[in-house]
Amino acid sequence: MNTMASDEQIVPQLLREYGGMARSALQKYLVFNGARGAEYMTSAVRDYPQRGGRSLRSTICIATARAFGAATEDALNSAVAIEIFHNAFLVHDDIEDMSEQRRGLPTLHATHGVPIAINVGDTLSVLGLRPLLENRMRLGLRVALRILEEAEQMARETVEGQAIELGWRHNNATDLGEDDYLRMVLKKTCWYSTIFPNRVGVLIATRDDSGLDCYVPFGFFIGAAFQIQDDILNLIGDRAAYGKECNGDIWEGKRSMMIVHLLKQTNSHDRERLANLLSKHRSAKRDADVQWVRRLMDGHGSIEFARGVAHGLAGAALNEFSLHFQGLPETRDLAFLRELPRWVLGRS
Amino acid sequence: MNTMASDEQIVPQLLREYGGMARSALQKYLVFNGARGAEYMTSAVRDYPQRGGRSLRSTICIATARAFGAATEDALNSAVAIEIFHNAFLVHDDIEDMSEQRRGLPTLHATHGVPIAINVGDTLSVLGLRPLLENRMRLGLRVALRILEEAEQMARETVEGQAIELGWRHNNATDLGEDDYLRMVLKKTCWYSTIFPNRVGVLIATRDDSGLDCYVPFGFFIGAAFQIQDDILNLIGDRAAYGKECNGDIWEGKRSMMIVHLLKQTNSHDRERLANLLSKHRSAKRDADVQWVRRLMDGHGSIEFARGVAHGLAGAALNEFSLHFQGLPETRDLAFLRELPRWVLGRS
Repeated sequence: MNTMASDEQIVPQLLREYGGMARSALQKYLVFNGARGAEYMTSAVRDYPQRGGRSLRSTICIATARAFGAATEDALNSAVAIEIFHNAFLVHDDIEDMSEQRRGLPTLHATHGVPIAINVGDTLSVLGLRPLLENRMRLGLRVALRILEEAEQMARETVEGQAIELGWRHNNATDLGEDDYLRMVLKKTCWYSTIFPNRVGVLIATRDDSGLDCYVPFGFFIGAAFQIQDDILNLIGDRAAYGKECNGDIWEGKRSMMIVHLLKQTNSHDRERLANLLSKHRSAKRDADVQWVRRLMDGHGSIEFARGVAHGLAGAALNEFSLHFQGLPETRDLAFLRELPRWVLGRS
Repeated sequence: MNTMASDEQIVPQLLREYGGMARSALQKYLVFNGARGAEYMTSAVRDYPQRGGRSLRSTICIATARAFGAATEDALNSAVAIEIFHNAFLVHDDIEDMSEQRRGLPTLHATHGVPIAINVGDTLSVLGLRPLLENRMRLGLRVALRILEEAEQMARETVEGQAIELGWRHNNATDLGEDDYLRMVLKKTCWYSTIFPNRVGVLIATRDDSGLDCYVPFGFFIGAAFQIQDDILNLIGDRAAYGKECNGDIWEGKRSMMIVHLLKQTNSHDRERLANLLSKHRSAKRDADVQWVRRLMDGHGSIEFARGVAHGLAGAALNEFSLHFQGLPETRDLAFLRELPRWVLGRS
């Protein structure tokens, strides 16, 4: 362990190290047999993965597997798969949310149109299966199939979470509580971003699936804190560093923790105006409308409230860490998992 | 075998019998854990599967498995999975093609909007994995994983075929040959409709994957004849029986065998007008334009030409049957496979 980093450096360090390994291992799965007319697909399929990103999901998978005693190579295929699935979800999410930018560039459907973008998302979902099927070579039939079962559950949770969020927008739901928000985020974000990589890492190392459910809360708390922090950055972040348009969530009518808070806290007159605004297509909103929502949030302390919830969730994640990871050998990987809740809050 | 049907009745009979079994076994997989806001999903996910359909894919899977000596129950999960995937593909295809009707009713995106329809398609793809994962209980780990590998290959072929067709429309391709058309149909239609159900049926019965590639041509020829016949019905079929709008393919700018033929046969003046028409969004086409294309097809015998190709392919399928299925015990299932090429041509 000659490169032991100080605790606050360990998260960015392993994101670079393991994330870099996953990003380069991923390349060989993004191949597309372009026949005449489909030559565009190879670059379209590689577009989002090549835009970079933190590689948080693959790093959690590898670090967890290593923390429990596995070799990096044992977890690499699963780490690659979750990065590919992540990009598949982003492509469809961006269409569903009518997002205009992703990682600082136009979204895929803005460039290629909706039909091709739907198919690129489908293609990425299919390409993500290959590394999981190839797990059989290194991990054996039983563990390979168990990981596929984990992937199926993860994907089911993700589409359910998406269905909830789309349903809220479709019905212009305004009577939402924090519990609704957190249940949506558990499914839509946490399951694939933190819970799945964590569970699969444990499964790969221990070859034992009997206790996997005890790792769900750790992933849930970290993932929810991550999502809330992400939504805060959408409002106050630097567009260049963040890669999406500022206030994009308000333009898209997204029910963030801040909007849920605002809908509860504001007076009935403003609530009606807010509900009416949320129901409008983004092209029918004006810049002044979005600025009004931002000022209303500032007036009610919605961002501070959400920041508080994120801190509470990060604290709960630390507690889960002490329950389920304490006692493992002290490695960089264990330090990574311990530091993750703090890192989630600190990134900007 | 007390219900031995005459040869020409065997296809509709087994479609009813095995298809009915698959349709009822399918129900339990179409469950959706609707949280607050996602209550709509259970009916949205069940919508296309409940509209009926021929259950051709599930019937081919069960009949092939039985023809090679397996029990119906061995093939039922795989038959269910392919029906679910089929519906998943239809939902996304309908968005990508801007189709307005499916099986006599408005398409899913016409009812729920594009964002929800994308997610319903994704959800059906995920739900189709479950019966394949459950194959392990009856077929064992090795065969269950091999079927998942077959499903991965099938899905990859399907998205590639879709990419080709979308690319043609996107680039308004007009220099297409019959070989281009057939390669597209091999991937987009045949792999999942006929090749996959056939290969998986053999695999389930023989537990041997060493000779599966020899069944590809049989499925290709039947599937391509099926698709060409489907495209002909789109032009000359009865709307009520067919379930889609008449001439819908022309409105959508689809490169059918008839359009490929026409682009080659017509004079340069009409070719230019046709190419220009194909490039237009359906909302920019007029009824008179579509009628002009139909008359041009009649003038050049394009439908008759396509019918001839379909007959040639069906004949080639019969030849494949005699190469690879001859010698199996004479059962209703074998008769079904033998009659399939003729049935494909005869349906209206």
